[in-house]
Amino acid sequence: MQLPEEVVERLLVRWPVARLATSGATGPHQVPIVFARSGGRLWSPVDGKPKAGGELARVRHVLADPRVSLLLDDYDRDWTRLWWLRVDAEARVVRPADPEADAEVAEALAALQEKYPQYELVPLLRDPPTLLSFQPTALRSWCASADASPTVC
Amino acid sequence: MQLPEEVVERLLVRWPVARLATSGATGPHQVPIVFARSGGRLWSPVDGKPKAGGELARVRHVLADPRVSLLLDDYDRDWTRLWWLRVDAEARVVRPADPEADAEVAEALAALQEKYPQYELVPLLRDPPTLLSFQPTALRSWCASADASPTVC
Repeated sequence: MQLPEEVVERLLVRWPVARLATSGATGPHQVPIVFARSGGRLWSPVDGKPKAGGELARVRHVLADPRVSLLLDDYDRDWTRLWWLRVDAEARVVRPADPEADAEVAEALAALQEKYPQYELVPLLRDPPTLLSFQPTALRSWCASADASPTVC
Repeated sequence: MQLPEEVVERLLVRWPVARLATSGATGPHQVPIVFARSGGRLWSPVDGKPKAGGELARVRHVLADPRVSLLLDDYDRDWTRLWWLRVDAEARVVRPADPEADAEVAEALAALQEKYPQYELVPLLRDPPTLLSFQPTALRSWCASADASPTVC
């Protein structure tokens, strides 16, 4: 069973977290990310949350291979309520010299700030400003039953 | 900051869901899975939850490339409580002719049944019986602060 189209739409706008899978030299790599939709794309900033240091694996991987997967889902002990939404996407690394002067980037940053009030305290960008931008190429969804949908609405 | 070793240990035994990333022909592929630890490996059955049909992509992918990633994490609106645990693993597809007669498989099935009471209603295996078995090759963890740990304990 697939998720109804309007639920998919809501998830892409409102769901707070995705798991990003990229291809690394030694196999697939995953990390949870925050994201917002803007201009038909999904955007995820390299933000001020603590990081392991150095250039992030997700950025290196996307530069080497732009094909990624984003997974939205929510585990529930009631297995009739399970669902997932998978977005295959072409990713690119965006490094704006002046983020606010780039209309596309400025719009994405505004969408991130609106979706995540946490950015009132956590820096939205680091130096140099870096974002990942995802152009969806395929959407696939699954839900265990019609009961699954309300949990995501 | 990394998760304390005893928290990692508890997560591998108790956390109810992982996101499995495999390498597909057109890029990385992800799906949420249930799993249990048995004999130092992680095990995930192709169970009776509704599926899209045909041989599962995760099984095809593992047969073509056994290198996978398992991600355990929990989103929280309080970003000081965020954490993740990533397990790189070598996967194999296990198709026991008689699951209960194979000691290693029987032990894994018992661990899955103990962890997930849902299997009282949902069939644990399909025909033919198929499981994915994961041998961890590397563990990496991250948490935003010391406050993150209690949420996973």
